[in-house]
Amino acid sequence: MAGGMIYDRVALIGLGLIAGSMGLRIRRDGLAREVVGTARSAATREVAVSLGLCDRVTDTAAEAVRDADLVVLCVPVGAMEDVARQIAGHLKPGATVSDVGSVKRAVLDAVGPHLPETVDFVPSHPLAGTEHSGPTAGFPELFENRWCLLTPTGDSGPATDRLTRLWQAMGASVETMDPDHHDLVLAVTSHAPHLIAYTMVGVADDLRRVTDSEVIKYSAAGFRDFTRIAASDPTMWRDVFLNNRDATLEILGRFTEELFALQRAIRTGDGDMLHDYFTRTRAIRRGIIEAGQDTAAPDFGRGKTPKGSAA
Amino acid sequence: MAGGMIYDRVALIGLGLIAGSMGLRIRRDGLAREVVGTARSAATREVAVSLGLCDRVTDTAAEAVRDADLVVLCVPVGAMEDVARQIAGHLKPGATVSDVGSVKRAVLDAVGPHLPETVDFVPSHPLAGTEHSGPTAGFPELFENRWCLLTPTGDSGPATDRLTRLWQAMGASVETMDPDHHDLVLAVTSHAPHLIAYTMVGVADDLRRVTDSEVIKYSAAGFRDFTRIAASDPTMWRDVFLNNRDATLEILGRFTEELFALQRAIRTGDGDMLHDYFTRTRAIRRGIIEAGQDTAAPDFGRGKTPKGSAA
Repeated sequence: MAGGMIYDRVALIGLGLIAGSMGLRIRRDGLAREVVGTARSAATREVAVSLGLCDRVTDTAAEAVRDADLVVLCVPVGAMEDVARQIAGHLKPGATVSDVGSVKRAVLDAVGPHLPETVDFVPSHPLAGTEHSGPTAGFPELFENRWCLLTPTGDSGPATDRLTRLWQAMGASVETMDPDHHDLVLAVTSHAPHLIAYTMVGVADDLRRVTDSEVIKYSAAGFRDFTRIAASDPTMWRDVFLNNRDATLEILGRFTEELFALQRAIRTGDGDMLHDYFTRTRAIRRGIIEAGQDTAAPDFGRGKTPKGSAA
Repeated sequence: MAGGMIYDRVALIGLGLIAGSMGLRIRRDGLAREVVGTARSAATREVAVSLGLCDRVTDTAAEAVRDADLVVLCVPVGAMEDVARQIAGHLKPGATVSDVGSVKRAVLDAVGPHLPETVDFVPSHPLAGTEHSGPTAGFPELFENRWCLLTPTGDSGPATDRLTRLWQAMGASVETMDPDHHDLVLAVTSHAPHLIAYTMVGVADDLRRVTDSEVIKYSAAGFRDFTRIAASDPTMWRDVFLNNRDATLEILGRFTEELFALQRAIRTGDGDMLHDYFTRTRAIRRGIIEAGQDTAAPDFGRGKTPKGSAA
C-alpha cells in the first residue's frame, strides 16, 4: 500500500462522534483505501452519507465488514455483544477487530467469545470526546494529542502494531494496558467524575429554593464545568456505569468516605484540616500542567475555545 | 469628576487576584483619580508596586483608607473582621465600604458592627476568578462579562448605585440580592461543586492501586476540570466553607442522598433510571448555553484558551 495507507478497507460499525471523527480523519489523510460504515438508524446513515464520513454506507453490519481488514465497533458498550453476533460469520480471515468502548473488561467478555479464531481482537479506547454526540458531532482533529489505550488479547502483536500506527496517524499517543487496570484507572479519571457531575447537576435542578434561572445565570462559579460533563451522551454513560460497576462503586465508596471527612471538618470548624487538604490537591494540578495535559492559562470560569478553532 | 471617573480615591485592602485586577482596570480606564492599596505581607506590597496594581501602596490598612471614597476589602473572608477593626477609626465620613468575599451573611455579621454610621456598607461578590491567586494573578479583563452580586444594607441607595457603576465600568453585570439567598445560590453553583472537586482529586491522589502518573496522564477524560477547580486558593476556600457552613452542608446532604440513589441504580443494574437522570441533566446544559453563560463549542477535554488571549 502506498504512502500513509495503513489498511485497505476499514469498517466502522455505529456512526456517532468517534466513528465520524475516525472516518473523516482516515479519508482526509488517506489512511485506508476505503472506509465503509453502517449504523442501526436510517437517519444516521443518511447524515453519514451527506457529511462524507465514509466512502460507502451499508444497511447492515454484516455487509459493512465484508473484506474489511479492520473492523471497529463504535456502538455503546451495551450494544457490542449484539453487533459481535451479527458480524462474526462475515469477517475476513486475518482481519483485526477493535472497538472504542470506555470500558474494556466487559467488552472483552461480551465480544471475544463470538469472534472466530481467524481474527485478532485488539480493543481500544481513545480518551477523546466532547459533550456532543451523534453523526454530526465528529471532526478529524478529535484525537489530536489525546491518549488511546489498547488492551490487546492473546498473540496479536502484529495486529496491535498496525492498529497503533493507525491511531498515531490520527494524532493520538498510544499505550497498551491490562484491561482490568484500564477499568480501574478510568473509574478514577473519568467514570466517577462523570457520575459526580451528573449528580451535582441533578441536585441543582431539584432544589426548590434556588430557581433554575439562578442556577443557570450564576453557573460560571464552578458549576459550569460540571454541566458540561453532565451533558455527555446518556446511553453511552448508562452503559459505562453498568459495565464498569465494581470499579466505579469502589471509587465512589472512597469518595463518599472522604467527602464525609471534609463535611465533618466543616461542621466542627477544623480549618487546618481543610487548608491542608486543599493545599495537597493544588499540587496535583501542578503535576498535570507539568505533564503537558493542560495549560496554566487562567481560563477557569471564562470563555473557552477549542484548540482546533483558535485563530 | 471628569470622563469615566467614578470615585476620587479607591482603597484596596489585600492585593491578590481580585484586588490586582480591580487596580489594573481602574487605572487603565481612569475610573478613579487614585488607587491606594495595602497588603499584610511586604513581599506582596513590593510586587504590587512593581506591577503597578495601584498608584500608591501603604504599609497599613489604616493609612490606605485615609480620605478614600471607596474602600474594598479584598482579603479572605476569615480576615475581614480584623481588617474592619483596623480601619474603622480612619474612614472618611460618607465613604462607601465594600468587600469581594464569596460569602455574604458572615461578612455582614463580621464587618458591619465595626463600621461607623457615617459610612455605607455595600458588600459585593464578583463571580470571577481563576485557579491562580496572589498579586501576580490579576488582569484588567477579569470581570468582563461576569456577574457581580451586591447585597446592600440599610439605606444605601446612592452608594449602591455608584458602586454598581464602577463594577459595570469594569465589565461586570450587576444584580442585587438578599445576603442569605446569595449564600444558598452560591452553595449550589460554587461552594458545593468546589468541595466535591477537592474531594475527588484527594481520592485520586490517595489511591494506591492507580499511580499518580496515571491519574495525571489520563486526566483529560473528565478529571481534569476537577483538578482545575481543586487548584483554587486554599485559604480563601477554607474560609468560604467555614463561613457558609449551613448552606454548604445542606447542599452536600442533598448531593449525598442523590449520589446514593445513583449508586444503587448502578449496583442493581437499573439502566432506565440512569438514562432518565442523564437525559434530564443534559437539558440543563442546554439552558446554560441558551442563557449565554457558555458556548456550545465542543471543547470538553480539549485545549482551552482564555477569551482575552484568543487571537
